[in-house]
Amino acid sequence: MTELDRRSLLVGSGLGMAAAALAISSAPQAGAAVTAPGRSTIRIGKQLINVVDLTHELTNDFNLTPGRPRIAMDPIVGSGYAVGMNLNRLMLVEHTGTHIDAPRHFDNNGKSLGEIPISDLVVPLALFDISARVAANPDTALMPDDVFAWEKKWGRLPAGCCVAINSGYDMIARVKAMQAGGPPADFHKSPGFGPEVCEMLITQRDVKGIAVDTGSIDRGSNSPAYPVHQRWLRSGRWGIEFLTNMQDVPPSGAVLIAGAAPIKDATGIPIRAIALF
Amino acid sequence: MTELDRRSLLVGSGLGMAAAALAISSAPQAGAAVTAPGRSTIRIGKQLINVVDLTHELTNDFNLTPGRPRIAMDPIVGSGYAVGMNLNRLMLVEHTGTHIDAPRHFDNNGKSLGEIPISDLVVPLALFDISARVAANPDTALMPDDVFAWEKKWGRLPAGCCVAINSGYDMIARVKAMQAGGPPADFHKSPGFGPEVCEMLITQRDVKGIAVDTGSIDRGSNSPAYPVHQRWLRSGRWGIEFLTNMQDVPPSGAVLIAGAAPIKDATGIPIRAIALF
Repeated sequence: MTELDRRSLLVGSGLGMAAAALAISSAPQAGAAVTAPGRSTIRIGKQLINVVDLTHELTNDFNLTPGRPRIAMDPIVGSGYAVGMNLNRLMLVEHTGTHIDAPRHFDNNGKSLGEIPISDLVVPLALFDISARVAANPDTALMPDDVFAWEKKWGRLPAGCCVAINSGYDMIARVKAMQAGGPPADFHKSPGFGPEVCEMLITQRDVKGIAVDTGSIDRGSNSPAYPVHQRWLRSGRWGIEFLTNMQDVPPSGAVLIAGAAPIKDATGIPIRAIALF
Repeated sequence: MTELDRRSLLVGSGLGMAAAALAISSAPQAGAAVTAPGRSTIRIGKQLINVVDLTHELTNDFNLTPGRPRIAMDPIVGSGYAVGMNLNRLMLVEHTGTHIDAPRHFDNNGKSLGEIPISDLVVPLALFDISARVAANPDTALMPDDVFAWEKKWGRLPAGCCVAINSGYDMIARVKAMQAGGPPADFHKSPGFGPEVCEMLITQRDVKGIAVDTGSIDRGSNSPAYPVHQRWLRSGRWGIEFLTNMQDVPPSGAVLIAGAAPIKDATGIPIRAIALF
């Protein structure tokens, strides 16, 4: 069968980004509580830790190809039906909503979801806010100079970290606009990673994953070759796409929990992504 | 369509439990590293935190009804195929492997997965090791007296906690034995929660979820009425089934991360369950 890959539809044009000057001036104080929806706190040992949900609710708003839903449910009438049990068979395209790309996504011999150890899924989070320049150039990429600037302020990228881009991309607004009028003319423009910084993070730093709030770790103009997907995933590392709420997470000092069910042979899966700091 | 519910097949008989005297003598020291597979450490603020993966890899070993797989994959040939992209349409029965039961599972008006806030999924973990008595009685239940004994040692159940049972149930050994010979005669016996403790936890304590390492929060002899599922989930609380590795988690002081993708209208989903302490 054939199906349009969602990347060709979901990559951003900058729609909804005008109001997205989501500056993070400094790291929140340890122990400071955040209480908005999607936020919580938890005590671990002697510390009160902030919790931020980085996950979009997975709805049919993510279905962008008419007649080809990315998620559907088929109720099962099982042995518990008589006592009120509800149970569904779920049809789910792996790379839907806030989700993880396993190396297998672009490497037949790469790790599937079931092979990614927990030590790779609970990692330091280095966050890059490029929302200020996205308004001017929706196809902007994270560059090695951004990493140098981050390190000048916060120190070297922590060992085994995830490097995440907060572009201010408003995925929900973007999808609704596209559903109303179809893909805009510049749908191949969206912020993301470029080959230069990808190569640097693989060869000169110790990074386990990269993450974005857009639909693709590749910036839009990289399509359809997906050079970052090819190089990054084939190096044995993972990617996360469609994060949200990153404006509430400090640039340095947070931990990312990539709550991905370890499904054997799967190339990706919707996750619960959580920041702790 | 009709389908046997997996609870009638997966509940335990005590198989594989003989060697499961998994005593936890005391809480590990803060900062002590655990490094076995499924274990890791992470620094959050000034603390070095232990990480334990409580999740089974989700394989076809969980398919117990011949001809009715609980998980299957259908490769999609999409726009990225030419550059090596792998992508699957996943067929997944919601309540498979290490998974969460949302209130919707037994309550048409209850919260679906997409409605459970992050504050309910990152919670203190109160762990009860009943493995010593499971060998003698595979249908043993957690009782109010167990809670009183735990509280005498560790203090009152923490606000908003998850109460989890470590029964020592070896799910993988159990499934393999059943696949080799079919359901054993006593397949309706497995440790779990009973109505008494369920009622106590709802009316006299502040508990957000209950969890087990078996296939059902209801002990086996509760089937087919599932009184704990009915009462607990209809009270707006969640359950988690098929946890593993709980022998490496302290009875008190750990935090549970229930990494459940927030899928609108879903009644459950395989998760990544993680303990931090």
